[in-house]
Parts: sequence; structure tokens; C-alpha cells
Amino acid sequence: MLDGLGDIATKEQGEQTPLEAARTPNLDALVAAGVAQGRMTPVAPGITPGSGPGHLALFGYDPLEFQVGRGVIEALGLGLELKAGDIAARANFCTLDGNGIVTDRRAGRIETEVCEELCHLLSRKVKKVGDTEVIIKAGKGHRFVVIFRGKGLEGPLTDADPHREGTRVPKVEPINKKSVKAKKAAKLVAEFYKAALPVIARKKPANGFLLRGIAHQPVIPLFEERYKLKPACIAVYPMYKGLAQLVGMTKLEGPQTIAEQFERYLAEYDQHDFFFIHYKYTDMHGEDGNFDAKKKAIEDFDAALPILLRKKPDVLAITGDHSTPCAVKGHSWHPQPVLLHSSLCGSDKLERFTETGANLGSLGIFEAKYLIRLMQANAKMFDKFGA
Amino acid sequence: MLDGLGDIATKEQGEQTPLEAARTPNLDALVAAGVAQGRMTPVAPGITPGSGPGHLALFGYDPLEFQVGRGVIEALGLGLELKAGDIAARANFCTLDGNGIVTDRRAGRIETEVCEELCHLLSRKVKKVGDTEVIIKAGKGHRFVVIFRGKGLEGPLTDADPHREGTRVPKVEPINKKSVKAKKAAKLVAEFYKAALPVIARKKPANGFLLRGIAHQPVIPLFEERYKLKPACIAVYPMYKGLAQLVGMTKLEGPQTIAEQFERYLAEYDQHDFFFIHYKYTDMHGEDGNFDAKKKAIEDFDAALPILLRKKPDVLAITGDHSTPCAVKGHSWHPQPVLLHSSLCGSDKLERFTETGANLGSLGIFEAKYLIRLMQANAKMFDKFGA
Repeated sequence: MLDGLGDIATKEQGEQTPLEAARTPNLDALVAAGVAQGRMTPVAPGITPGSGPGHLALFGYDPLEFQVGRGVIEALGLGLELKAGDIAARANFCTLDGNGIVTDRRAGRIETEVCEELCHLLSRKVKKVGDTEVIIKAGKGHRFVVIFRGKGLEGPLTDADPHREGTRVPKVEPINKKSVKAKKAAKLVAEFYKAALPVIARKKPANGFLLRGIAHQPVIPLFEERYKLKPACIAVYPMYKGLAQLVGMTKLEGPQTIAEQFERYLAEYDQHDFFFIHYKYTDMHGEDGNFDAKKKAIEDFDAALPILLRKKPDVLAITGDHSTPCAVKGHSWHPQPVLLHSSLCGSDKLERFTETGANLGSLGIFEAKYLIRLMQANAKMFDKFGA
Repeated sequence: MLDGLGDIATKEQGEQTPLEAARTPNLDALVAAGVAQGRMTPVAPGITPGSGPGHLALFGYDPLEFQVGRGVIEALGLGLELKAGDIAARANFCTLDGNGIVTDRRAGRIETEVCEELCHLLSRKVKKVGDTEVIIKAGKGHRFVVIFRGKGLEGPLTDADPHREGTRVPKVEPINKKSVKAKKAAKLVAEFYKAALPVIARKKPANGFLLRGIAHQPVIPLFEERYKLKPACIAVYPMYKGLAQLVGMTKLEGPQTIAEQFERYLAEYDQHDFFFIHYKYTDMHGEDGNFDAKKKAIEDFDAALPILLRKKPDVLAITGDHSTPCAVKGHSWHPQPVLLHSSLCGSDKLERFTETGANLGSLGIFEAKYLIRLMQANAKMFDKFGA
């Protein structure tokens, strides 16, 4: 899974996408050996997904049915291991005036070190609220995450964030007013504010904080039970390990480069039935709008590919979780290209794996949530439907 | 929007569609500048839409969810401005014998002038039924429209039309038997018959009339509220102005030629965010099965295109509301080609905008109701879905 693989061809880029411009002899050889190609709509036409919905769709979960809150995604990104029922909130340190009015929502964008210090202080002083454990972890700059680990809690809640300066921090409310668990969670957040604000009240400029995307880690049916496949995740960045863990994948830690990730796959080949291998750099360079670096990231991936192919999986899919076009400098709605290789995939008789080529492939344009089913079909896992 | 743009390539037409055969230097230049192409299913596979569903889909409304009755469409086509709650019926003058049996459902296809005279007479004699206003307007030949404008009315009703000769005009009934409003409407139609039939009883050959497609103008969420875009319609024919008005578009009246329509767009550019420009002649010549005239209509459109491009919209879509193949001489189910141009559409690297080319485009085949969302995505109007 090359994160943000898909791109668009613009005049400025010589009417080529990074995938088209990249030298990919190993992908080309795989295509020549026979692959099916197509494009995948990550969520729905015109909708740009975040990493959460992008990955859940790849794992076969309808991203509109299984929604994961922003706090949970942030917590996963910081490498926190959440438990089902944990409430997670994305937090900012901010500046409050004498009357409790928010004067700077980012506290002058304080340094990460200052944030870490404040989080450390808060962690020491506020370990619990009532019978609920509080876990605080610093992120980058003014950002941190707060986890409430207790019993009978539920989100989502409204934000403790006015989303603009010049007004007070609003009280959080359950979004579902009838939920007793959400009411309890809202009360807890209020108590947390009461306990935590005095701890940093004399700090400058960060003497307050805002919470948003407050929701519980949803219970998601396990990948293994859903597909009868023992899954493992080989990812480098915490966010993707976290998303894989959400569906119950075993995290195989250690590898840093794509070559090491593929080596790890070889080593673990007999222990698992399904490997999710995450490659970050296509997305990272797409976000920067750096065409050459994205192209190079694809070439690096291609150079390592022969390692993976030493023990060629029965079914191999190569795709992204969404497009991150250099011209957009961010995620986009453009369907990502996908390649499927198996003994039964047939051949689309295309020369390379590219966006333009994938437009012509036998898979057509389909919703990403169906990829796993296509892979299972290619693995001959299914009986006939009907007699 | 080139009405009925899509076509099929037949042997008789030299295996070309009008769009393929037409000389379109300006469309070709637009394609060379970078466009995304695809085809749109107007309603569902194999379903041929009328103008109502064809346009509602283009405006982003699911044509199966938002159904507009035949009477309402006819009224819009005659330029009548309906209000929400108005009941409209498509009407035919017919011939009845002494026992009330329908002997000719079209009264010998009377001349338009005769129809106008009869409608004038009916309008004078039957202005109201109970507290409900009655509006009667002649169409072509034996056709006219009846509008009931009152309070607490609702359709749809069964037809006051046996759909064959040799039998009586059936009494209308509410389709939803539980609707009090529809019961009131059915009673009203019966009273209208009682008042109107005697007025023309001695006329020959049109001494009776049939009503069908009796339904109220549905309440459709406003385009502007739905999409946060201020929409305007630049159409020549009443039907399309009426359909645009159904979703709350501002009608810009006056222009007659496509060049004048594009000039009007330039003049109004700053007053609106979305322009629906309707071009009728592709459909008209398709209905006649006139290949050369349809090709010429496309060339006329192409010749005027540079006017539109003087103030190139951020996002431009060129498509039809359905196909009207010359070989069919009518609307059809074949997906219409669509072209999308914006700074973020990418390029499909196709040479021209044609049906066959669109088959290879990055947009694939998608439901027409998603076009507006794709346009909004290209206009960068959306936030990311999920974190």
C-alpha cells in the first residue's frame, strides 16, 4: 500500500503523473507477467478521505458505516494503544485571558518541548477523574491527546473548542442526547477541565486547552473473523499501525525501510495469511507537492519489489489508500490506481501500471471496500453464490 | 448541457456518432489543455429518462427519490410557473358518444387553434372549483394542461383516462388511499369534470377531455441551500427553465442563440456561482433521426465555445442530460459522455471529446447525480472526510 499513490497529469508536470514518470522495471515485469488493473473510489465520488476512512475501506470496511473520531486517529498516530470504549480527544494548548476568553487557539504555536513539559505536568497532577484513568500524551507543537479510560463511556461529544478566538471554551455535550454513557463522558470532561486548568493557570502563553473530535474507540469486527485470514501489519508510522490494530491485525515491529519491510514479510510468510505493508513516502512527498521526490519514492519501492516477489503471494494487490496529487498538495478524491496479481487475475495487456493505464483495466472503477473481496476471490476462498 | 448529446455509432452512420463526425476545433483545444472524461448513467442501467429525471440528476438530485409528475413537466414546458402544492394534469381533448364512451382519445387530433379556443372557453366558464383556482393552458394539437391551485391538495391520482377507446372515463382515485389531501384532490377533479364537461358538450369533435399524470409540484430542496452555490439558468425553452426553477435557479431570460447564452454568462459572471446553460438542438435533431443536423448543432455549439471560455469557469462540465441517438429517434438509456475541466481535473490524454474516448476516461461510468459533487470537489469546496 503506497500511501497517497494516485496522482493527476498536469501541464506543469509534463502531462505525467509520478507513477508514469517513474522508472519501474520491476512493476513493469509484474505487469508483463499478467495483472488486472483498475481504479478505486476511496469513499464515494468526489469525496476526499482522511487516512482513517482510506485504510478502513482497504481493509474491507465501509468507511461510511465505520467512522473513527479524530481524537482516536490522533491517539493512534502518537502510538497510543487504545482499548475499545476508550474516549480520545485531540487537544490544543491555548491562551485564555482573565475572563476565560480564548485569545490564541494555539498559544502562539508553542515549541514541542514546551508542550511535552506541560503534558508531563498535567499527567502528574491529573491521573484520574473520578474512577476514570486519564492518559495525556504530547504531539507536535501545541498539539496533544487526552484519553479517558473508564467504564460506561461513549462519544461522540461536541467540541470544547469555540473554533475561533474572542469567546469562551464551550461546555461539551453528548451528540446523542439520549445516551447515558455519552452524558457520563461529557460530565467527565467537565471534571477534567476543573482539575486540569488550575495546574497550568499561571503558565505563559499556554494557560488553557481545547478538546475536539472527542469520541470513543469504536468496536470494529475483527479482520480475522470477517475474512478468515490471519492478518499482519508491517508499517513504520504509528498511525497506520494503529489503524491496522483497530481491526485486530498483528503488528510486526522493527523494519524501517521498504526493503526491510519486504524482508520481514519473507520471514513471517508462514505465520500469517494476509500482510498489510504500508509505505508512507508517496503520500509525504505528494503533500509537499514534490513531484520528483514522489517519483523517486515510487522508484525506491520498485527497487525493493523483487524482495517481496521472492515469495510471491498467491494474491498481490498494489495500490494506495487515496490519491495525494502533487498539484493538490494534499489528499484528493481522484480514484487511486490498483493492480491485482494472482494465478487467476488474467491480463489486461497493458504495458505499465499507471493511472491512465488503470483507466482501461478490467477492474474498472470500483469502491475500495470491495478490494479485499476481489483478493479473496482470486485466492479461491469463495464458493459459488446460488446453485 | 447539450440536450440528448450522447449517440451511438452505427454502420449506416459510417460507424461514427455525430460528436465523432463533427469538426470541433474548440472542444479539441479544451481537451488538449487537460480534461477528465467519462460517461454518465442518467438514472440506472437500461433506463431511458424523460427530461425531468435527466435534468434532476444533473442538478444532483436522485431522480428515483425526486419524481416529478407528467402534468407538472407539461405545465413547466408550457411556461406555467407552478407553486409548491399546485396540482397539475396533462390533458387531451377527446370525443365522447351519447353514453359517455370515449370514441377518440385525441378528438381527431384537432388543430392547435381549436384547442386554444376550447381552452379559452373553459377558462372563462370554470375559474374555480370550490375554493380552488383552476388554470387552463393550451398546448399543441389536442393537448392542454390543467392546474388546480388551492390549499391542502396532494397527488398523485389515478388517470381520468381509460388509455383506450370504447370505454368510459374512469373516476380518479388517490394512489395513496390514506392521504386526506389526495382524497380532496380527487374530489376536486370530479367536481371539475362536472363543471367543465357541460361547457364543451355540444362541441365537435372535442366534446370531452382526459386527464393523466395528475400530481402536485413536489417540494424539492433548493439547489442553493444544498450546494451553497448561487445558481442561474440560461435556457431558451420553457421546459428547461421550469426544471431549473423547480430547484430554485434564477432564470436569466432573453438569449436565443448559444452565442447569446454564452454572452449572457459573461455578463452575469459575478452575480452567480453556478450556471446551467441549456442547448436544445442536439436533442431536437436526434429526435428527428437527422445525423447531419445533429452534427451541425454540435459544430455550432463548438463555434460559440470561445465566448464562454473568455471567462473560463473554475470548473466546467460539458455533457448531456441523456443520449438521443439518431438511430433511436428518441431519448435512450445509453450513458452520455461527460467532460470535466478544472485546475485539478488532470488529463486523460485523449485527443478529442467523444463517446468512444469518454469510455477510456478517468471518470469511468458513473451515475449522473454525482456530477455536481465531482464539480464541487474540483472547485475545492469540500473538507476531507474523516481524519
